[in-house]
Amino acid sequence: MSRIVMKFGGTSVADLERIRIVAARVKKEFDDGNQVAVFVSAMAGTTDQLVSWVEEISPLHDAREYDSVVSAGEQITAGLLALALQDLGVPARSWLGWQIPFRTNQVHGAARIEEIGTQDLLSRMENGVVCVMAGFQGISADNRVTTLGRGGTDTSAVALAAALNADRCDIYTDVDGVYTADPRIVPQARKLEKITYEEMLEMASLGAKVLQTRSVAMAMNHKVRVQVLSSFINEPGTMVVDEEEIVEKQVVSGIAYAKNEAQITIVGVKNKPGIASDVFSSLADGNINVDMIIQNETEDGNKTDVTFTVPDNDLEKARMILQSADDIEFDTILTDSNVVKISVIGVGMRSHAGVAATMFKTLADKGINIQVISTSEIKISVLIDAEYTELAVRALHTAYGLDAA
Amino acid sequence: MSRIVMKFGGTSVADLERIRIVAARVKKEFDDGNQVAVFVSAMAGTTDQLVSWVEEISPLHDAREYDSVVSAGEQITAGLLALALQDLGVPARSWLGWQIPFRTNQVHGAARIEEIGTQDLLSRMENGVVCVMAGFQGISADNRVTTLGRGGTDTSAVALAAALNADRCDIYTDVDGVYTADPRIVPQARKLEKITYEEMLEMASLGAKVLQTRSVAMAMNHKVRVQVLSSFINEPGTMVVDEEEIVEKQVVSGIAYAKNEAQITIVGVKNKPGIASDVFSSLADGNINVDMIIQNETEDGNKTDVTFTVPDNDLEKARMILQSADDIEFDTILTDSNVVKISVIGVGMRSHAGVAATMFKTLADKGINIQVISTSEIKISVLIDAEYTELAVRALHTAYGLDAA
Repeated sequence: MSRIVMKFGGTSVADLERIRIVAARVKKEFDDGNQVAVFVSAMAGTTDQLVSWVEEISPLHDAREYDSVVSAGEQITAGLLALALQDLGVPARSWLGWQIPFRTNQVHGAARIEEIGTQDLLSRMENGVVCVMAGFQGISADNRVTTLGRGGTDTSAVALAAALNADRCDIYTDVDGVYTADPRIVPQARKLEKITYEEMLEMASLGAKVLQTRSVAMAMNHKVRVQVLSSFINEPGTMVVDEEEIVEKQVVSGIAYAKNEAQITIVGVKNKPGIASDVFSSLADGNINVDMIIQNETEDGNKTDVTFTVPDNDLEKARMILQSADDIEFDTILTDSNVVKISVIGVGMRSHAGVAATMFKTLADKGINIQVISTSEIKISVLIDAEYTELAVRALHTAYGLDAA
Repeated sequence: MSRIVMKFGGTSVADLERIRIVAARVKKEFDDGNQVAVFVSAMAGTTDQLVSWVEEISPLHDAREYDSVVSAGEQITAGLLALALQDLGVPARSWLGWQIPFRTNQVHGAARIEEIGTQDLLSRMENGVVCVMAGFQGISADNRVTTLGRGGTDTSAVALAAALNADRCDIYTDVDGVYTADPRIVPQARKLEKITYEEMLEMASLGAKVLQTRSVAMAMNHKVRVQVLSSFINEPGTMVVDEEEIVEKQVVSGIAYAKNEAQITIVGVKNKPGIASDVFSSLADGNINVDMIIQNETEDGNKTDVTFTVPDNDLEKARMILQSADDIEFDTILTDSNVVKISVIGVGMRSHAGVAATMFKTLADKGINIQVISTSEIKISVLIDAEYTELAVRALHTAYGLDAA
């Protein structure tokens, strides 16, 4: 007997037929003798519809009302899944965020979880009831509905799994696991049986949108064993686990890419103490996330070039901020949104030398120019021209021995 | 300064444009210095959609899950209207049934109101906040969402108006008031400035679907002054008030008709004590509402004919119940769903003789055969062939002097 938290995203509950398939999947875990709690997202498209109504009726909307409106989507699916389970003869009932209660702070639209009432759920599960819960939502101290932000149902599920000390948190989605690379680009990509939290965090932050970053961080902090798997096919997915659980570590676990990057170079910045701080605090004030950064001396020692990347859709905003900043003097600004960030990720590289060298050589052999490099303990990222994306990912996948036999 | 409860039905909040119109209407009352509480229904079509999902996914559905799913509709409109008001500069916030709290019993799908928490609402209203509430929903003692049944938002509004001791409860709908007859049939029909609770009750139960019957009964019990008016045109509607408020009483206030009636005659019932009880308790057990009843002796004193009406869509069910009842012996069953019930209604008829005689003579003069008659203190109803509906309503409207000058 295990205690399992299951989570089904919007495409998995997109219509009544799919909700019935989800119910059958939940029934199987229940019939196997497990204690089961299930979180559901809103039916695909519903949240977008509700958000667009809120934004249209009040462009500068009150986040508290936003939360109350948008949380209705998960409320609908939770009730429908409970009904579908009952229809299959499985004892089930639904809970909304305020009923659990799923207590959060008052940061509407991006609330943080403070405490989850598990007593009622535990006694129901012990009595053979499947608990179906509306994901993404909570209740604040002043009795109002809060939401956890986009993709928040992953976080709901992992948080409850931690609170219930669950054996596993299964995140059902429209992909069947985490791959060594995007299978649409690399036909030889393999599904990973296991991946570490840290690797998954790097993947998630790189835009491999399998799991929400925040839910991975939470799983890592609470050592929740998370499984990513498909609700459409019936086979094991990828387990996201602690490094210790992985006996034979790959040096590199996967090759990821992120297309929504743009490169900015500020040419001829007057080189004075604090200039980097001036540049990047202006951008931070504008809520722009800066990623890779390099700074080069120019021949003229009084000037320097600063290069960094920002999200593609913040490029124009970033340019405007820099141009209107009084305390930053420079010659010109060059931008390039036609770039891609390619990363090799693996906890094994901590103990292996030469991983970066292999990457640079592989790209050089294909004639691919590296524009920016950044590294972390378990990741090496380079910025290259976007048109080399597929070539680079495939070459690296082969170079690190990841191709399926 | 008055304290006003306003209610807007599904067609009044059918889309964002209409929600903005509603917001402007609420703003006007607020700008006039009134304390305002507003109840909204779900956007037209939403409740039907949610109900159909519930019924499709689980034909014998759990009413508790039904309530949780279906109440999402009002949740969405309440938040959107609060946002639309804020966008017009009106301080506003939304409340869901459980937040008010709007306490009901546990009869899911048709819950009865037990207690309404008014303290928070009152202090908000006194501080100039417009309270926007999701209608139709409440919370039971075991912390689950309940709904009040179809049309329940009228009841929500009247109940809160009673609890708040409001000066008026304005029910905005898609008609601009209560008429002396259906204006689509009688072009000379006049809008009534005032109507008594009892008359309105008879109208409502006859299917003049301006107000839900239950909300009228509640208004009568608590002497809530209810106004029925249109959200699409800007003029006073019809006030539903206590009889004492109406100085000059009409003998007849209106002519109503109900088409969804079917007539059943059980021919040659063996005449024994308790036979009527047998017939009607079988039907009651089948949840069939019987309306008009007559019983005639036949020439053969051992047998009798029993005629009564039931809702059109219960006709086949009623026939099956009667045919399978062991203790009811009869020769045959005749049914006719091609009938209409025409009623003249007026509190004035209590003190006036001859109202019934006028009705019968008017119909006879037009060659209309009366099949069944039933009367109450303030109403006379007859069942006639449906093809005479318009002729009968127009003739009676003229006969009782109701035609507009």
